[in-house]
Amino acid sequence: MKQKIAVLGAGSWGTALAMVLVENGHDVTIWGHHKEQMEEMNKNHTNSHYLPDIQLPMELKATGDLEECVKDAEAVLFVVPTKAMREVAQKFVSVCNNQPVIIHASKGLEQKTHKRISEVLMDEIPENKRKDVVVLSGPSHAEEVAVKDVTTITAAAEKIEYAEYVQRLFSNEYFRVYTNQDVIGVELGAALKNIIALGSGALHGLGYGDNARAAIMTRGLAEISRLGVAMGADPLTFIGLSGVGDLAVTCTSVHSRNWRAGDLLGKGHSLDNVLDNMGMIVEGVSTTKAAYELSRDLKIEMPITETIYSVLYENEKVEKVVKDIMLREHKSEQEF
Amino acid sequence: MKQKIAVLGAGSWGTALAMVLVENGHDVTIWGHHKEQMEEMNKNHTNSHYLPDIQLPMELKATGDLEECVKDAEAVLFVVPTKAMREVAQKFVSVCNNQPVIIHASKGLEQKTHKRISEVLMDEIPENKRKDVVVLSGPSHAEEVAVKDVTTITAAAEKIEYAEYVQRLFSNEYFRVYTNQDVIGVELGAALKNIIALGSGALHGLGYGDNARAAIMTRGLAEISRLGVAMGADPLTFIGLSGVGDLAVTCTSVHSRNWRAGDLLGKGHSLDNVLDNMGMIVEGVSTTKAAYELSRDLKIEMPITETIYSVLYENEKVEKVVKDIMLREHKSEQEF
Repeated sequence: MKQKIAVLGAGSWGTALAMVLVENGHDVTIWGHHKEQMEEMNKNHTNSHYLPDIQLPMELKATGDLEECVKDAEAVLFVVPTKAMREVAQKFVSVCNNQPVIIHASKGLEQKTHKRISEVLMDEIPENKRKDVVVLSGPSHAEEVAVKDVTTITAAAEKIEYAEYVQRLFSNEYFRVYTNQDVIGVELGAALKNIIALGSGALHGLGYGDNARAAIMTRGLAEISRLGVAMGADPLTFIGLSGVGDLAVTCTSVHSRNWRAGDLLGKGHSLDNVLDNMGMIVEGVSTTKAAYELSRDLKIEMPITETIYSVLYENEKVEKVVKDIMLREHKSEQEF
Repeated sequence: MKQKIAVLGAGSWGTALAMVLVENGHDVTIWGHHKEQMEEMNKNHTNSHYLPDIQLPMELKATGDLEECVKDAEAVLFVVPTKAMREVAQKFVSVCNNQPVIIHASKGLEQKTHKRISEVLMDEIPENKRKDVVVLSGPSHAEEVAVKDVTTITAAAEKIEYAEYVQRLFSNEYFRVYTNQDVIGVELGAALKNIIALGSGALHGLGYGDNARAAIMTRGLAEISRLGVAMGADPLTFIGLSGVGDLAVTCTSVHSRNWRAGDLLGKGHSLDNVLDNMGMIVEGVSTTKAAYELSRDLKIEMPITETIYSVLYENEKVEKVVKDIMLREHKSEQEF
C-alpha cells in the first residue's frame, strides 16, 4: 500500500534509500538543510556531491522545510550523522503532526552518553508522536543500491510487526530485507564495524595484504561480539548481515569511507588531513571513542579498538595496529 | 628446538609453509612427485609454477623420494590435494620409520566417504606410526606468506599439547598461530568456505558488487555453520580464523583459485574450460559435491551449496546463484 514517507538526511545513504522507496511506489519527500542541494535535487534530479553520476527519479521530492517534509508522514526515516541525530529528532518533534513509524539507518554511538541511535530517538520523540523505532542496517554501499545492484539488509525492531512493515516498504527484486528482533545487536554491529574498517584500511595503507585483513576482521568481530553480548545483544546477530556481512563490505571495499580514512592514516596522513579530505562524515572516528570508553566502563577486552583509539586520539603511531594483531599474548582462539 | 620436518606436497601452500619452517631454524625436506620440479627447487631454489618470483631459502631440501623425505622426521606435514591424501598416507606408512606428529594443511572432504582429512589420515596411519593429527588452517594465501606478510592461522588438535607443539614450530613475527581443540569445526570451515568462494566469484563474474558479495558471505557462513554443528562442531569456531577469517580472505581476493574459478564461471566459461585453465586443483568443486550429499543425508538446508552443485554438476545456469540469494522465502534472519 502506498505510504507517505519522510526521509530526513540527504547524504548518499538517505538518497539511495529514498530511491528504493520511490521505486516501490511510495510518496517520498527527502529533507536536508543545504538549500542549494535541495534545489539541485528538485531541478536537476541529481545529488552530485553524494551520489555523482546518478539520476534521481522524477517523483522524488526534496525540501529544506522539515515541517513540510514530515506532514502526515506514515513513516519517517532518519539518516543523519550520529552527532546530529538528537537535534534533528527534537526539531522533528516540534513539527510532527501525527504518529509515524520511526526508522533509522545511521551507524554510530552518541558521544558522551554512549547511547545507541534508537535510544536517542526514543529519548527525544514522545510516544504519542511515534509507533516503534525500527533499525535498517546491513552490508549496503549507497552507490550500489543507487544502481540497483543486489543488496540484502536487516530491519530490526522489538515489535516484529514494525520490522515487517519496514520489510514491506523497502523490499523489491534487488533490495532484500530480512527481519530481526535484536535491536541492540544490529545497532552495535553497524556502529562498531566502522572501527575495524579503520584498522583494515590502515593495514592496507601500511602495505599489508589479504591475510592481515582477514586477521583483523576475525579478531575484530570477536571483540565487537564481546562488547555486544555485554550490552545485551544476541551473539548470533554478529554472524548475520549487520555483523559479518557489514564488516565484510566495509573492510573490503573502496566505497567505504571508514576504510578509506584508515588507508590514508596508514599511508602517513594526519587525522586532521584525512578528515578534511573526505568531504563526508567518518562515523568510525567518533564511534572509536565511544566504544573505547564503553569497553573501559564494562571491562571488556577490545585490543583493536584500544589501538585505533590510541592512534586517533593519543598520537600513537599507526604501525601499532599491526603489532596489536600479531604480538598480543593470546595463544588460544577460544577466548570469545 | 630444531626439529626434522617432512613436508609432503610441493604446491604453493606446502612450499610457503616449508619456507616458514626453514625460517624458524628447522631441518626441512619437501617431497613432490614431479622430478623436474624437485630439481628446480634444489638447483635454482625456485618453484616457478606454484610460487612465481619467489626465491626459496637455500636450506630447503627437495626430494622425489618419499622414504628419504620422511626418514627420522619428528613431524610430517601433509599438504597434498584432498583426492591424493589417502594414497599418499598409505605410501607414507610403508616408508615411515618412527612415530612423528602428523600435521595437515589441506582443505577439502573426501569424495564418496565425505570424511574430513584428519579422519582419512587416522584411517590410514596406524597409531604406532603417529602421535596426534593436527590441522593447520586459516586465512592465508601462500603468495603472501612467502613474502612474509602478516598472517594468522589456527592449529587444531584434540590433544592441546600437540596443537601447542605445532604452534611453536610455525610461530614467528609474521606468522601467528592460535590453538584450538575443535578439529571438526576447523576442518569443516576450511573445506566448506571454498563452496562460498565459488559463489562469490560467480557473482563477481556476473557483474554484481560488494553488497551482493557480503550477502553470499553472510548467508554462506550461516549454512556452513548449520552443517558444521550437525556434524559435531562448536558453532563459535565459525566466527574464528577458519570460519569468518578464511571465508573473508577466500571471497575477497584474486589470490583465491576457488574465487577465480567462480569468476570465470560467472563470465560464461564452461566448468571444463575453467578447470583446464586453472593449472591447479580447485578443491571447491569436489567439496561442493561432498557437502551437497552430506546436506541431503543430514537434512540440513544449504541453499547456496545446492545452487553451486546444480551449476557445477547439473548444467544449471550460473545466474541461478543470484536468485538463490535474493528470492528464497526466508523472511527472518534468525534461522541459524
